[in-house]
Order: sequence, then C-alpha cells, then structure tokens
Amino acid sequence: MGILAGTIETLDDLFVHQLRDIHYAERKILKNLPDMIERANNLQLKNDLAAHFLQTQRQIERLEMIFKLLDTRVTTVTCPAIDGIIQEAEDVIGKAADFDAQDAALVAAAQTIEHYEIARYGTLVAWARQLGRYDCVRLLRQTLEEEKTADQNLTAVAEIQINMEAV
Amino acid sequence: MGILAGTIETLDDLFVHQLRDIHYAERKILKNLPDMIERANNLQLKNDLAAHFLQTQRQIERLEMIFKLLDTRVTTVTCPAIDGIIQEAEDVIGKAADFDAQDAALVAAAQTIEHYEIARYGTLVAWARQLGRYDCVRLLRQTLEEEKTADQNLTAVAEIQINMEAV
Repeated sequence: MGILAGTIETLDDLFVHQLRDIHYAERKILKNLPDMIERANNLQLKNDLAAHFLQTQRQIERLEMIFKLLDTRVTTVTCPAIDGIIQEAEDVIGKAADFDAQDAALVAAAQTIEHYEIARYGTLVAWARQLGRYDCVRLLRQTLEEEKTADQNLTAVAEIQINMEAV
Repeated sequence: MGILAGTIETLDDLFVHQLRDIHYAERKILKNLPDMIERANNLQLKNDLAAHFLQTQRQIERLEMIFKLLDTRVTTVTCPAIDGIIQEAEDVIGKAADFDAQDAALVAAAQTIEHYEIARYGTLVAWARQLGRYDCVRLLRQTLEEEKTADQNLTAVAEIQINMEAV
C-alpha cells in the first residue's frame, strides 16, 4: 500500500488514505454523539441518535477489520472536513434558544454528518470494487446502506414531528 | 426574521442562518472550482466541473433572489464545514503524484462537496415548506435537483473512466 513521504501514487494509496480519514471521522462522531443525544428533546430523535451511536461503534469495528484484511496500520490522519462539520453543528445547536428549533438544528447537523459519510463510503465502495477487494466492498457497502437508512430516518423524524413544532 | 445577539429563536431564524451559511459555501466553492478544473486531467471530468462552475454562479443568484424575497440582508457567516471540506480536498489532491490518482481524488472531493450541498438544500427545502414559503421552495428545489444530478454525473465519470485508469 505504502504511503511514502506523504505522496499518494496510486488508487491503493488513496483507498488507504480515505479509510484512515473516515476512521478518524467515525471516532470523532462517536465522541460527539452523546452530547447530541443529551440535547435532543424529541423522543424519536433521541432514540434515533442513540441507535446511531451503537451503529457507529460497529462501523468503526468494521473499518478496523478492513485494515486487518489489507494488512495495514490504523494511522491517524487529520480530517478537517469532519472537524469543520462538527464545529459548525455545535455553533448552530448552541445558539438555538428554543427546544424545537434546537431539534431542527440537530437534525440538520446529523444529516450533514450522514451525507459526509455517504459521500466517503460511496467513494470507498467504488474504489474497493476497482481494486478487486470484494472482501472490503462487502463491509463498506454494509456501512453505506446503514448511513443511507439513518439519513432517511432523520428526514422522517424531521418531517413528521420536529419541524412542525418549530414553526 | 431577527437573529438577535447571535441567538436562534425559531425555525425562521434557523432558515435565514442556514441560507447565509450555504451562500458563503457556494461562493467558496465558486472560488475553488477554477483550480479543480485546471488540475483535472480527464476531459469529461474537466467539462463536468466547468459546467458546475456556471451552475454555481446561477445557484448564488438564486440564493440572492431568496434573500430579496425574504427582505433580509446577505450577511456573511462563517462556515467551518465547507472550509474544512475544501481544505481536506486540497490536501489530498495536492498529494496525488499520479494524474489518474489525482482525478480519482478530485472526483471524491467534488462528491463530498455535492453531498454537503445536498444535505443543506434538502434541509432548506423542508424548512421552507414548513414555513409556507413556497416561493423559496421552488428555487431551492431547483438547486437541490441540480446538485443531485451533478453528483450522479461524477459517479458516472468515476465509474466509467477515471478509476479504471487509476488502478
């Protein structure tokens, strides 16, 4: 695989770099979810975020399984994208003075996180397929489907309950 | 609308805040696209990014139309999410030593940007609908559909051409 002196020579290198990037992002999300769960007022939203916390733990394990399959180290890379997304989420949620507006802001933040993950895992599935690593494709696709479902669940909870209350 | 002393009281406030956020993001994307176009090696990717540059200009005009409809100012807010996404994209693309790996990294970066926009415009469409601002819904949905199409086009160009070359 060999990422040497910070350069990325091939799709193999890019694949490993992106895996390390999403591994950092998932751990950052896991760290931030308890605060989001605590701030959620709507019960369905609270439950959905709590379920996503458990799911994120399994997704991290899946990534670590992939690192083993690839026989490569879990090196930490910085991921300014997820740092920025979470910082922005905290800013907006923190400013929301009203319970219902806070929930609407929480859903928006969670969906931004989901879409970041959908983009990343979508790319990773495509690259794993191109590299003929079908063992990785299977694991990555499982996570991709979970992220899409989580996004759909957030849309449902927003449309049915939260936004109606926040008007 | 009234965002007073940085607090967000209602869905109206959130809606305006998010509009200002995506307005900043779109301008940042517009500023960065010429560099991405220049770095693209695959002709189809170059053309797709160039088309998206023109589309982004129209999307900014559409947002400014919405600010007029809402009779509110285009105040600049910071948007750490898009700053982080673009910083990460620049890091990875800059490290790619090979033309084809660089294109694969460019597609991944562009798709991350698209998904950020899809999440944001999806939320904005839902909130505009809840607020009964169907004049805004129409404009926002137009952009949302364009972003989804841009994402699909990037997937197509990645699957057909770039990733095959980058293996």
